[in-house]
Amino acid sequence: MNAIDKYNARADNVDSLLCIGLDSDLARLPKAFLNHETPQLAFNRHIIDATAEYAAAFKFNIAFYEVNGAAGWRQLAQSLEYLRQHHPDALTICDAKRGDIGNTSAAYARSIFIELGFDAVTLNPFLGRDALQPFLDYSGKGCIILCRTSNPGAAEIQDLKVAGRPLWQLVAEKVAREWNDQRNCMLVVSATNPDEMAQIRALTGDMTFLVPGIGAQGGDIEAVLKTGLNSAGRGLIINSSRGIIFADDPAGAAAALRAAINEHRP
Amino acid sequence: MNAIDKYNARADNVDSLLCIGLDSDLARLPKAFLNHETPQLAFNRHIIDATAEYAAAFKFNIAFYEVNGAAGWRQLAQSLEYLRQHHPDALTICDAKRGDIGNTSAAYARSIFIELGFDAVTLNPFLGRDALQPFLDYSGKGCIILCRTSNPGAAEIQDLKVAGRPLWQLVAEKVAREWNDQRNCMLVVSATNPDEMAQIRALTGDMTFLVPGIGAQGGDIEAVLKTGLNSAGRGLIINSSRGIIFADDPAGAAAALRAAINEHRP
Repeated sequence: MNAIDKYNARADNVDSLLCIGLDSDLARLPKAFLNHETPQLAFNRHIIDATAEYAAAFKFNIAFYEVNGAAGWRQLAQSLEYLRQHHPDALTICDAKRGDIGNTSAAYARSIFIELGFDAVTLNPFLGRDALQPFLDYSGKGCIILCRTSNPGAAEIQDLKVAGRPLWQLVAEKVAREWNDQRNCMLVVSATNPDEMAQIRALTGDMTFLVPGIGAQGGDIEAVLKTGLNSAGRGLIINSSRGIIFADDPAGAAAALRAAINEHRP
Repeated sequence: MNAIDKYNARADNVDSLLCIGLDSDLARLPKAFLNHETPQLAFNRHIIDATAEYAAAFKFNIAFYEVNGAAGWRQLAQSLEYLRQHHPDALTICDAKRGDIGNTSAAYARSIFIELGFDAVTLNPFLGRDALQPFLDYSGKGCIILCRTSNPGAAEIQDLKVAGRPLWQLVAEKVAREWNDQRNCMLVVSATNPDEMAQIRALTGDMTFLVPGIGAQGGDIEAVLKTGLNSAGRGLIINSSRGIIFADDPAGAAAALRAAINEHRP
């Protein structure tokens, strides 16, 4: 079962398109966790225990672990291991936005897919397909390629017109038509612009999108669902990070977001 | 003294534009180092000791450390610390090709510039300037932005025509004219196409380029120097990784490459 099939099965099992982003920034952890020897691991276990029944996927943002050096790296690996043990059918995403030349990409791919054991990774298309090939060659793993990101300045490069069309459209087409021969590609598509979501859906058939930008970044759930669902009523991995993990009641926040998403599913 | 000034001073001190890439892949280390408890650190110390007199900069490729987990991360930090202690004036570059949204980029910037303590980092422009701003705000540090990379498929995205001009030209202009207000930007410009090197030099004045692609990747030293030197006779950080560190005689390889470069300097 490849990463996309794994996600779809889990999405059906827990009736959810929700991904919880474990952006477990040490500086923002509740004080109760700071006394632990491994505070990020303790916090992640708490969040996973509280929210897993509402989540089809979990996304780990590498930045918030590596900033704590070897100790952070170890807690990333241990958190992932805990998740795999307790919820082996949940999709695990490494948000690392990698993109490098061949032998370096091969090392990153081994690090993320094999040593850490993630199901999927986010990737940057700027270096072209050959740079991502070491990732694409893992046919059972998911390659989630940046298409339209949710930061305020995303347009600066991604909206540049190439033969009259924005660069993000070309990336969407290239991934769907050329880079996806192992059927393991997905795209990052921001929640913040429903028109673009609709166009990318039209260009890519039933491809699955990882969707950042809900909540704090202003994306509207109803618009995302209306424009983004694929023909199977899935095709979206809707991420929320800080809005859930730093909520007073993470379980309640996750349950509420799952419900808000499901309200607009067929 | 910012990172670019630091590089220039070191380049003059050791009469060199050479950067040595510590792509210290565990699988390729000489057997003698594999018995060490910290083989990557032992190897790096050996390479640093042997080659520093010929090198203006050292570049650490994160992939080859993080693939070994927390132990690799620790050896990366220790290798950098060793370099700082013994050759504090050598420029240290983290080859990480980062690019992410704001709060994530802030964590990466703190990780690389403060926790690890690198002088400079490689960055990916695909998310736009605001994504790189947390790096750019460290005015004493160097931000080396991908413009034209050296992988065979670099053209796929970077050569796309925007208003009749390749994307790499727009990236070069944006960085030189808009992103560089702290005077701490540099560019990655491949050695493999001298015509493009000449055009990027013309677009960016005396900006400093990190130049991959010499040697194994086919770049020609004379052509790089003829097209890439800036008006001060520097402006190039010419990287060689495997060709030096895995040579039978790393000191000899570094000395020879420095000499081959200097032959074409004014």
